[in-house]
Amino acid sequence: MIEHAVGRVLANDVTANVDSPPFDRSEVDGYAVRSNNTYGAEEDKPVTLRIIGESAVGRIPKIEVELGEAASIATGAPIPRGSNAVVMIEYSKKTGEKVTIYRSVVPGENVAQTGSDVMVGDLTLKRGTVISPREVGVLTATGHFEVAVYRKPSIAIFSTGNELMPVSNKLEPGKVFDVNGPTIKSMIEEMGAKADYLGILPDDYESLRSRIDDAVSRYDMILTSGSTSAGLGDMIYRVFQNIGEPGVLVHGLRIRPGKPTVAAVAKGKALIGLPGFPVSAMIAFSAFVKPLILQLLGLKQTDSGPEVTGKLAFRIETGRGARHYIPVNLIESQAGYAAYPLFGGSGAISTLALADGYVEVPERKEFVDEGEEVQVRLLSRNLKLAELNIIGSNCPGIDLIIELSGRPNTKQVNVGSTAGWKAVDKGEADIAGTHLLDEDTMTYNIKFMQKYDLHGRAILVRGYSRRHGLIVSKGNPKHIEDFKDLLRKNVLFINRNKGSGTRAFIDQNLGKLDIDPENNVRGYTYEARTHSAVAAAVSQGRADAGIAIEIFADAYNLDFIPLGEEIFDFLIPKQKIDKPSVQEFLRVLRSTSFVEKLPLRLRGYNTLPDTGKVVAQ
Amino acid sequence: MIEHAVGRVLANDVTANVDSPPFDRSEVDGYAVRSNNTYGAEEDKPVTLRIIGESAVGRIPKIEVELGEAASIATGAPIPRGSNAVVMIEYSKKTGEKVTIYRSVVPGENVAQTGSDVMVGDLTLKRGTVISPREVGVLTATGHFEVAVYRKPSIAIFSTGNELMPVSNKLEPGKVFDVNGPTIKSMIEEMGAKADYLGILPDDYESLRSRIDDAVSRYDMILTSGSTSAGLGDMIYRVFQNIGEPGVLVHGLRIRPGKPTVAAVAKGKALIGLPGFPVSAMIAFSAFVKPLILQLLGLKQTDSGPEVTGKLAFRIETGRGARHYIPVNLIESQAGYAAYPLFGGSGAISTLALADGYVEVPERKEFVDEGEEVQVRLLSRNLKLAELNIIGSNCPGIDLIIELSGRPNTKQVNVGSTAGWKAVDKGEADIAGTHLLDEDTMTYNIKFMQKYDLHGRAILVRGYSRRHGLIVSKGNPKHIEDFKDLLRKNVLFINRNKGSGTRAFIDQNLGKLDIDPENNVRGYTYEARTHSAVAAAVSQGRADAGIAIEIFADAYNLDFIPLGEEIFDFLIPKQKIDKPSVQEFLRVLRSTSFVEKLPLRLRGYNTLPDTGKVVAQ
Repeated sequence: MIEHAVGRVLANDVTANVDSPPFDRSEVDGYAVRSNNTYGAEEDKPVTLRIIGESAVGRIPKIEVELGEAASIATGAPIPRGSNAVVMIEYSKKTGEKVTIYRSVVPGENVAQTGSDVMVGDLTLKRGTVISPREVGVLTATGHFEVAVYRKPSIAIFSTGNELMPVSNKLEPGKVFDVNGPTIKSMIEEMGAKADYLGILPDDYESLRSRIDDAVSRYDMILTSGSTSAGLGDMIYRVFQNIGEPGVLVHGLRIRPGKPTVAAVAKGKALIGLPGFPVSAMIAFSAFVKPLILQLLGLKQTDSGPEVTGKLAFRIETGRGARHYIPVNLIESQAGYAAYPLFGGSGAISTLALADGYVEVPERKEFVDEGEEVQVRLLSRNLKLAELNIIGSNCPGIDLIIELSGRPNTKQVNVGSTAGWKAVDKGEADIAGTHLLDEDTMTYNIKFMQKYDLHGRAILVRGYSRRHGLIVSKGNPKHIEDFKDLLRKNVLFINRNKGSGTRAFIDQNLGKLDIDPENNVRGYTYEARTHSAVAAAVSQGRADAGIAIEIFADAYNLDFIPLGEEIFDFLIPKQKIDKPSVQEFLRVLRSTSFVEKLPLRLRGYNTLPDTGKVVAQ
Repeated sequence: MIEHAVGRVLANDVTANVDSPPFDRSEVDGYAVRSNNTYGAEEDKPVTLRIIGESAVGRIPKIEVELGEAASIATGAPIPRGSNAVVMIEYSKKTGEKVTIYRSVVPGENVAQTGSDVMVGDLTLKRGTVISPREVGVLTATGHFEVAVYRKPSIAIFSTGNELMPVSNKLEPGKVFDVNGPTIKSMIEEMGAKADYLGILPDDYESLRSRIDDAVSRYDMILTSGSTSAGLGDMIYRVFQNIGEPGVLVHGLRIRPGKPTVAAVAKGKALIGLPGFPVSAMIAFSAFVKPLILQLLGLKQTDSGPEVTGKLAFRIETGRGARHYIPVNLIESQAGYAAYPLFGGSGAISTLALADGYVEVPERKEFVDEGEEVQVRLLSRNLKLAELNIIGSNCPGIDLIIELSGRPNTKQVNVGSTAGWKAVDKGEADIAGTHLLDEDTMTYNIKFMQKYDLHGRAILVRGYSRRHGLIVSKGNPKHIEDFKDLLRKNVLFINRNKGSGTRAFIDQNLGKLDIDPENNVRGYTYEARTHSAVAAAVSQGRADAGIAIEIFADAYNLDFIPLGEEIFDFLIPKQKIDKPSVQEFLRVLRSTSFVEKLPLRLRGYNTLPDTGKVVAQ
């Protein structure tokens, strides 16, 4: 029973039911004696006593030791009546019914006295103590098979929004999976409370009202997420306001994100409406709901989980007038943790995947400077920080290397090549993936060592080539073979964003055709930010052609017309080269296994003669 | 489903099943347009477009936006065919079927493109990732309702020893409760594995053999504790050796504690015999068994729980030739954590109650110096470190103060008055309870400010008085009324240890009788170390009388003959006075509530005219 109490909180003070030890017991194997019988006993002047019996562990001996007598005794066995000390077996010699003692003992020697450790009635654990295995041990030792703990509060969770579908279903067009329901439920359960995810509610007053009304009668707390923005006419606000007295207490907090958070009390239950975007919902939960649940659990509001101290990786402007909660990604560097603010948008899964925790910026602060020390509250105690930090351009080739290596706990921050170079400059990335094209020499990466002043401070390791080309629908119905086909009126192109290596390649090739692309290429102004977005647009018929690396044609089952290759390299700061996870990464990159598997696993990829070699330093 | 995976470990790499966003979607409320329709639009040079319909969240719009047209669109709604940007509602004005646009947009503006966040096939989570709520969010968002996780290993636990009883029973004489069974079970479950505590086995080869044989066929791992010492003839060793091939791999490690640890493999299962003392068992489990279980869980062996860096509070000698694991108690001071080595014995509950973690001292080291930096591995992730540290003499009066205060997470280290003074000197205690008697002046505590050179560095706050006297059996059958009754031949006395305040009081009073106590007082050489041990000895008939404070007569239902009072004060280092938990402690000590409750709750206790006042500084 008691072992099931781990993580629960003691509802009462607990006192010892038994003494520890519960009887005077021997701390050694030897002979129980009257200590004054041994006075003066030495190696060459021993004392001989008569053995009258023994005391074994587990029962009270019936014997009584008188002057001139001894009883053999085991460690943990009760001290027989009459004796007051134990001679260690090492200082004795048994001969038949006699024992010769070679060392004197003082009263109480080698005896653990009743209650000398813990006594009956001792306050051993205080109300409010969180039970860990150590407390299980203390409770058991002091005679407690059961203890009173605080009841687990029960919390109902709803997600609201017409666009939401449960992840158990197949995604319908125009819909997204509900992320908050399962996520918030798991956050609550991780805290030790009970949570029921009661499903998705439409943005409809009557449905919301009746389901929430029902839940209020059965749960201690109701949490909703979504439908709190102004666009939905404050629907959650109105529902909460009408459930019962006193109604809404807080609406529209001066915080970002979380402004639309609604807090109400009705029929003695707390109702809280969280923002809809997952990262915002998690942060608002952590910052506002967790303290309430902790209180219901009998815990202190300060027990709200792990924090680490870090330095902000770059300056953020927050502006005054609101408290800001900035999601951050933590990267361990020699100088401790660097906290990278995440600006992918709180609706983005990539932000969610990278958010280790958040930094609270008080209302009076306008900005937090680069390098400023910040407290990062982690989003979960189950969250593991990374052993290998890869910041820069992402590539499935990196995933293959990780797979082939010892699979360190790897964090990949996909911020593009340029930001990767900056992270190496600051020494915060272990490795940066890069495919920057120098348009003067039409070579990749090497020339940028000079530009970023990294000679002597970083090494550039040759990676591999990735084939890129035209991506078109399966079967290539419009017979697109070359850049000049993009000039046709029946071809809709999807471009890439300026600054990307692929865009440089596109513009270079269109330049050779001596035309004005904006007027002559349909779709030239529609820019996708990733290879994948290009492939998705072609796949869904939103465009007829785009330029991307070959692997995405594969992923989206499209046709591919090769046009060239680009080189993807790895930049590593000097001080990170000896890090075991970096060494392992390089070992795999240089292995024959990688050379064999890369082209097989990733269509259009190939190693190069100098793969794994340092090409600049 | 997926929300139940928290704490589990991914058995496979996970890739995205859906794009995020799964369609091009608006990031704002406004109007979907063709961006070139808005070129040049400004506040005083607006553009007017015809509204052809709307795109709402949750479904794909049927409309197509042509030149000169716009569609109203909500945040999160799909971008209609033909449009490539969204004008925020703030920069528009609707008039009937027309909308006037006051700001231009570039292609893609306010549009989140399909897959721009995460694309189908993206490796989103790697095998071996521990699932936290964040991962639940990522898995849900990328279309995973279920994921493959590593199976929970199942572990059988036995406790061995004839002296053990389950805590669910009433304690029989000579027995102790089995602590390790429930404790080890809770440690395993806290790690996320399954554990069955299969009960207590006697120190008997055949019983051990048949029960363990049976468990090997049903569990992944067998853990026993106890019966590993030499005294039991290596019984666990022999059992493990005979279960199957290859048998015992390790026996008798060069570690302290844990020397008797036995490790075997039989029929492909691991069998480990842990030491019997709870603290030793917990440390051996944490150091040797946890890494194995982590591996079975699919986790890294480095994930073995929280660690803190601290400074050793005093020098410990370990000697070479064995690796030592020193249980420590952690105290937060201004200089960080101080780690107090615990020497109460690994069988002591008080050691168990205080053990926050342990320090590993490598074989080559002979000692660890005072102030040396040490890594402390915590025994549990549920373990909470203390907000208020009270080091010194223990007293139920302290418990009452804590109960009446805000119940901070309090750690009490009961090391006696003298060690409390030293802890204040080092600034590691927040408060030290003290009742040191100066025999020259027969006053308590104040004179020691000089002796410990604490004037100006600490304050001594007056506590309360505790009545002490003779403790005798109920009804006082031997009519013991005074110290002179201790001289009677039919009276067996139990003394206190030298250096205790009570011993000084005893010797002072016996001195007045002008006798040689060793020869004239029966039991004078039998020294108890605590008030409780005195009361227990009288209660169990091992002595007829002793001197203790009155409250223990109460606790053991004994008679009490008052002989005087002692004063219990509180010593506080200057730098700790402003700590909120210390201020709260003093507030309660000075409250009328405490004055009223102290004599009612604790017989023989009373406040003094100067209770709560600073009596020395």
